[in-house]
Parts: sequence; C-alpha cells; structure tokens
Amino acid sequence: ADKVKKSLGLVKRTTWKVAKEDPRRVIHALKVGLALSLISLLYLLEPLFKGIGKNAMWAVMTVVVVMEFTVGSTLCKGLNRGLGTILAGSLACLIEYIADVSAKTYRAVFIGAAVFLVGYAATYVRFIPYIKKHYDYGVLIFLLTFNLITVSSYRVESVWSIARDRMLTIAIGCGLCLVMSLFVFPNWSGEYLHKSIISKLEGLANAIEVCVKEYFCESEIQSSEDDSCEDPIYLGYKAVLDSKAIEETLALQASWEPRCSRYFRRIPWKQYTKVGLALRHFSYTVVALHGCLQSEIQTPWSIRSQYKEPCMKLTEQVCKILRELANSIRNKRKFCPHILSNDLNVALEELNNALKSQPQYSRGSRFGRTAKIQQEEEFRASFSSVNNCDSCEHQNSEEESKERQKKVLRPQLSKTLSMITSFQFSESLPVAAFTSLLLEMVAKLDHVINEVEQLGRMSHFREFRVEDEIV
Amino acid sequence: ADKVKKSLGLVKRTTWKVAKEDPRRVIHALKVGLALSLISLLYLLEPLFKGIGKNAMWAVMTVVVVMEFTVGSTLCKGLNRGLGTILAGSLACLIEYIADVSAKTYRAVFIGAAVFLVGYAATYVRFIPYIKKHYDYGVLIFLLTFNLITVSSYRVESVWSIARDRMLTIAIGCGLCLVMSLFVFPNWSGEYLHKSIISKLEGLANAIEVCVKEYFCESEIQSSEDDSCEDPIYLGYKAVLDSKAIEETLALQASWEPRCSRYFRRIPWKQYTKVGLALRHFSYTVVALHGCLQSEIQTPWSIRSQYKEPCMKLTEQVCKILRELANSIRNKRKFCPHILSNDLNVALEELNNALKSQPQYSRGSRFGRTAKIQQEEEFRASFSSVNNCDSCEHQNSEEESKERQKKVLRPQLSKTLSMITSFQFSESLPVAAFTSLLLEMVAKLDHVINEVEQLGRMSHFREFRVEDEIV
Repeated sequence: ADKVKKSLGLVKRTTWKVAKEDPRRVIHALKVGLALSLISLLYLLEPLFKGIGKNAMWAVMTVVVVMEFTVGSTLCKGLNRGLGTILAGSLACLIEYIADVSAKTYRAVFIGAAVFLVGYAATYVRFIPYIKKHYDYGVLIFLLTFNLITVSSYRVESVWSIARDRMLTIAIGCGLCLVMSLFVFPNWSGEYLHKSIISKLEGLANAIEVCVKEYFCESEIQSSEDDSCEDPIYLGYKAVLDSKAIEETLALQASWEPRCSRYFRRIPWKQYTKVGLALRHFSYTVVALHGCLQSEIQTPWSIRSQYKEPCMKLTEQVCKILRELANSIRNKRKFCPHILSNDLNVALEELNNALKSQPQYSRGSRFGRTAKIQQEEEFRASFSSVNNCDSCEHQNSEEESKERQKKVLRPQLSKTLSMITSFQFSESLPVAAFTSLLLEMVAKLDHVINEVEQLGRMSHFREFRVEDEIV
Repeated sequence: ADKVKKSLGLVKRTTWKVAKEDPRRVIHALKVGLALSLISLLYLLEPLFKGIGKNAMWAVMTVVVVMEFTVGSTLCKGLNRGLGTILAGSLACLIEYIADVSAKTYRAVFIGAAVFLVGYAATYVRFIPYIKKHYDYGVLIFLLTFNLITVSSYRVESVWSIARDRMLTIAIGCGLCLVMSLFVFPNWSGEYLHKSIISKLEGLANAIEVCVKEYFCESEIQSSEDDSCEDPIYLGYKAVLDSKAIEETLALQASWEPRCSRYFRRIPWKQYTKVGLALRHFSYTVVALHGCLQSEIQTPWSIRSQYKEPCMKLTEQVCKILRELANSIRNKRKFCPHILSNDLNVALEELNNALKSQPQYSRGSRFGRTAKIQQEEEFRASFSSVNNCDSCEHQNSEEESKERQKKVLRPQLSKTLSMITSFQFSESLPVAAFTSLLLEMVAKLDHVINEVEQLGRMSHFREFRVEDEIV
C-alpha cells in the first residue's frame, strides 16, 4: 500500500509539472477532447448520420491524427492530408477507369501491380530531402488513401462514390481541426520561435556575465566546480547548443501559419533560424570560456586582478549588446546602433590601456614606443569616426551597412589583439587565453549583430527611437 | 519544352542521388511495395476475403503506417500500435458494457462524454516527457481506436466482434511488417548508430589534423579562409555538433531491436549516446581551434615555427588516439592502453621542452631554476610510473581505472600548463592561446576515452591483443 501511495504521488507530481511548465497544454488537451466530441456528433445525431453514414469514421480519424499543438503543424498536416487524399483519389479513379475493361482475374493482377508500383514510388519519393522536409505526411496519406480506394474498388461497384465520400468526410475533419486550432486559443509556432530566440540571447548574456564574474572573483570559483549541471553558466548556453532541430521544425511550421508583420508582409522565419545559427556559433566560444574557468591551472589572483576591471567592462558591454538585441526583437524595433559601437569601443580601449600599463611593458616588443602612440591615435580616430557616422546608418543599403559594421568592429579588435601580442606575459598565459577568447567572442558577436540587423530589415521592424534607450 | 527538359533532368539527378547516397533505400522501397501487394491479397483472393471481409482495410492501413526504414522503428511502431489497439479495445468494451444499461439518448450523451474525457486525458498524457519519448505513437493509436470503436458501437449490435476483427487484422498487418523488416534485408538502427560514432571519431581526427597543419604551414592558410562551408575542417566537426537529436532517436530505436553482443548481453545503446555527448563537448574545442585559424591577427611565422614541431606531434598523438578509439569500437575490442598514455606523454614532454628552449627563458618567472629542475624530475617520475602500471590495467575496477586515467592525463597537463605560465611570451599570445586550446582539447579527450572505455566494458568488448596494434 505504501508503494502504491508513493507511485501515485509520483504520477500526480509529474502530471502537475507538465501543466505547470506550460498551461497551454491543458487548454490544448481540452480542445482535442472538444473536437472529438463534436466530430462524434456526425455519428450520434440521427439526421447527420443519414447524410454521411459510416464514412463519419474518416472524419474522426482525421481529427485524431491532424490535431496538433500549434497552428502551424495542424495546418501543415491538414493541408498535406487534404492534398494527399485528393491526389490519391484522382489516381485511384484513373486506375479504376483503366482496369475496368479487363476481366476479373486480370483486374486483380493489374490492381496488385499498381499497388506495388505506387507503393515503391511513394516510399522512394519520401527519401528525397525536399519532399521529406515539406510533404512527408502528405505522401504517406497519398499512399494510404490510394491503397484503400484501389483495393476496395475490386469488390465495390462505384469507386467514384467511395472517393467522393471519403474526401468529403476528411474535409470536414480537417476543417474542424483548423477552426479549433486557429480560432480557439491558438498556439503559434512562430511566436514560440520568436520567444525562444529572445530567451536564448538573454540566457547567453547571463552565462557570460556569471562566467567572467566567477573568473575574476576568488570566492565563488570553488563552489561551481563540483557540479556543472546546476551551473547557471551551463544552463545559459545549454539551450543554445542543441537547438538546431527544434528551431528548424518551428520555422517550418511557422512558415505555414497565416500571420504577417507590419504592412502585411510575410515574417521571414528562415532568418530566425539564421540568427539561431549565428548564436550557436557564438555559444561555442562561451563553452570555451567556461572551459577556461574549469581548467585546473589558473593564473594567480594578483595577476588576474590587473585585468579584472577592463575585462568586466568589456563583458558588461557584450551582455548589454546581447540584451539590447533581445529587446529589439521583442519590441520589433531596430536596435540602437549608437549604443552598440560607442560603448564597446570604450571598453576595448580600456582593455588596451590595462594591457599597456603592465609592468613587463615594452621589452621584447617589435613596435617601439612611437609606433604605439601612433597606433593609439589611429585608434581614437577610428573611434570618433564611428560616432559621427551613426546618424547616416538608416540610409545605408544592406551591403554598405555590413561593410560599415565590419569596419567598426574588426579594426578595433585587430588593434587590441596586436596590442596584446606586443607585450610580454609572465605567468599570465591562462588569463591571456581568456582575454583572447573574450575578443574572439566580440568578433563572433559581429556576426550575430549582422543577422539580427538583417532580420530587422526583412521583417520591417520600426526605426529606433530615442525613448527606446535603456536607462 | 526546354524548360520541361531541364526540370526533368533535375528530377532525374535528384532521384539518382537519393539512391546513390544509400542503396538500401531502393531495397526498402521495394520491400514496402511488396508488403502492400501481399496485404492486398487479403482483399483480392476470394477465400481470404470471405474470412476477413472489409476489415482487411485495417491491415492495409497498418502496413502503410508501420513499415519504417529500420527494424527498430518498425518494431517500436508495430508494438506501440498493437498495445494501443488492445488497450483501446478493452476500454471500449468496458464503456460499452456500462453504457448498455441506459436508454438510447442517455447512451449518446454518455458516449460523447467518454470521448471527450478520454480525448482530453490521452492528449494530456502525451505531453509527459517519458510517454512522449517512448509511447507517443501508442497513445495516438489508442485514442484513434477507442474513438472509432466507441462511436461506431452506438449503431452496431456487437462491439465485441468489431474489436476482435480489428485487432486480428491489425495483428496480421503488424506481423507482415515485422517479418518484412526483420528477415528481408534488415536495416538496423543500432548498426547505423555504431557506424556514425566511428565516422565521427575519424572525422574529428581529420579536422584537427588539417587545422593544426594549416596553422603551422604558411602556404595553405589563404585558400581556406574564403569559404568555410567547403572546408575539410568544418566538414569534420559539423556532423558532430548538431547530432544530439539524431543520436537519441537512433539509440531509442536500437533499444527495441532484438540484437545482442557477445555472451548474449544487451548492447548498451545509451552508452553510445554518452560517447556522442563527450564527442560533442570535445568538438566545441575544435571549433575554438578553428576560430584561432580564422582570426585576423596571427603570430608571425618565425615565432609560430618554434612551436610547430611539438604541436604537430601532440596533434598527431591526439589524432592517433581518436583513430585508435574508432578502431576499437569498429572491431569491438578494448583499446590499447599502452599506446595511449605512453606516446601522449612523450608529446607533452616535447612541447614542454620546446617552451623551455624559448629565448625569453626564465625572466620574471616565479619558479627559480632549481624549482624547474625538480619539477621536471617529478614529471619524469610520473611518466615512468605510468609506463609501469600499464600491465595491471585489465584487473582494475571501473572506479579505479577512472581514477588512474585521470592521474595519467591531468598531472601531465597541469605540469605543462604551469610550465607555460612560468615563461614569458612576446608577440606569441595567439600561438599561446592556440597551444592552450590544444591542451584543453587533450583534457577533454580524457573524458571521451573514459566514455569509450565504459562502452567497452558494458558491451563486453574482447581484450586488446598484441596483433591489434597499429603498424
């Protein structure tokens, strides 16, 4: 009795957890129940049954199979089913027409051969990647319906009426599913995709923040090493790493959904997966950073602390940019170009200065002192030129703005990196590797920014306004 | 006409490509065609039709839906379908028994309510992760069958006979599918998983090899920068990065397959996914290495070349280990513990020496000269102790051997890393970051080795023999 109680408790908790994670699931389950009851009326009510008869079964079957969680997948399945049925019905009628002339035995052979050939061809077609991606279910239904109609045509007089009744009932089933999922508390795949990209951007920002903080703050580092599963850093990037399959499915489903952005344009769901791809590549650097944190040999605290200030500042900027990108997507506006380039440059410059003020300064360096001053001047020049060209941002075409963005980030990075290489390090290799990974991360951030910018352009986000600025 | 010709050519090429990539697809398509023709005989042959009648339709449907590419997924779907049908049939009979007493109108209401409740409960249950993973299809079929039987019971006298006939035909359909997929050119999910892990190990080895070679060989670096998609490095790790979903599906399907390893034990498919996980984490470091290669600021060739020799050697060792692991899995034998620890240590030591022979030697280092010599002696001691304990490898229990492995790799790494930190670098930061990533990679290799070792133990690979050694 105790065991039964325990397992009952477990069942109860699991069930509750499912509902708590996403309350829409309960609503969806209720919707399915309701749809099934409604479609059963075709059978239960006398006048309806007289019209449709036993074929009502097909409507029930359609509802069970087609009704999915999101609008996109329901539409995709429903249309696939409809298309497959119509094609199969037509082909079956054609075959029936040809087979009609011959004698009964020949007809059986003919039907058998047709079933074999169509079965072979349909299965083969399902391996073609394009078909597999978009119409897998449709081909399956085509094969199913074709076989059922062709085979039963052998013993029934009029295939036409079978095909017609079946199509009618399947249409009723599909129609009910579409109405239920489109108009009764709809769940949009696109919205889910949209939100998941935003939460990924924010998760990465958190992960980087915690990671760098732990690297430079002595006290916390011990506690995080023992269990990497519960780690906030790990949780932050875990969701991004293996998201490819989910994102692509969602984008595919979303592309079936009849929704549009401002000015009635299609929302570019494919671009969302591209942002996801850029984020995945970005997150690999975060994994490497996390590896630095967990590695056993560490630079002494005394040396680390010299870099603490600028690294923390750079990280803060990177996180700020990620969060700004998330906000930009959330509010469907373009992101603020001013904040991005300006503060990041300041942070990079400060990192430069910190590296310059190292005690081991200038020995063994290829550049003389004058070269460095010159370099710094160039640096400042490019820095101020960036500020000036912000206002002309919006007029730029795609190519130009991409070029410009590269011009903003790349030279800064290059300079900082060459600055680093011109100094000597003692005992500071790990922290140097950490720093160079941070810089690598900024370089990849460039790519993420480009993709989000492209997304903004393609979905016609509204322009950035002053009041949007983060306080 | 020209256009039609062109698109026909495209269709022809695509179709041909599908077959060329995997000839088993053609065989599978033929199998499906054959199975469908066979099942159609139930309808076409007079004596068979008399026994089963119109319910033969259900057998056709089952074959279309259940017949999948691999044995595992066919079994999984077939058993799910069988189980779902039996449960649904029983429940429907129970409901029919209860509803039998009441009047006709009440009965309709009762059936409607039952449909709603069961639909709600079944849909909700499908959201529970465990059910979703293992029995999603079964629950769907349960819902389908339950609805069809319950609803049609309203107008038909004996539900029992409906339920019985349906189960019989579905059993025939499932049986045919199982026979076709198990005995006619079977495709095993497990075999596919097995091979994919091996090819991933080898792909990673190639990627690392090319990557390090390009880093240290001036001539090739320019050509590889322009197009990262066609890059052999990218191709090597791409397959590993996003493999989570595929691997888990394959392992799940494989766990349904009735195959066993030596001594009739179950093959630990779950452990394969764990190896896959370790490989994925390993590959993130490879991505970071690739990032170093593509980064714009590079250490001058003169300095790089100083590290070329030992880095190349270390890489060679890492690749050799990866290939040995691949061979070990392919030939189902344990890997050679001797080769692993011995040569890797030599390579690590050489890297040490290269770092030591740097001209900027010993200035600003915390350790004095004596400390270094002492360190080196310790190093040698641990190195020789490793060689000695190789022979006792096989008797170790799991915990012990894990410990030992850590003892082998970690101290070496630690020492090399601390060696690096005690030297000064000028202009060599990028190459230092590259080197430290290489070492990080070795640390992660440790984890991969552990998982493969565990796999070997769990699937009772045969012991390593001398003649297995790579020449």
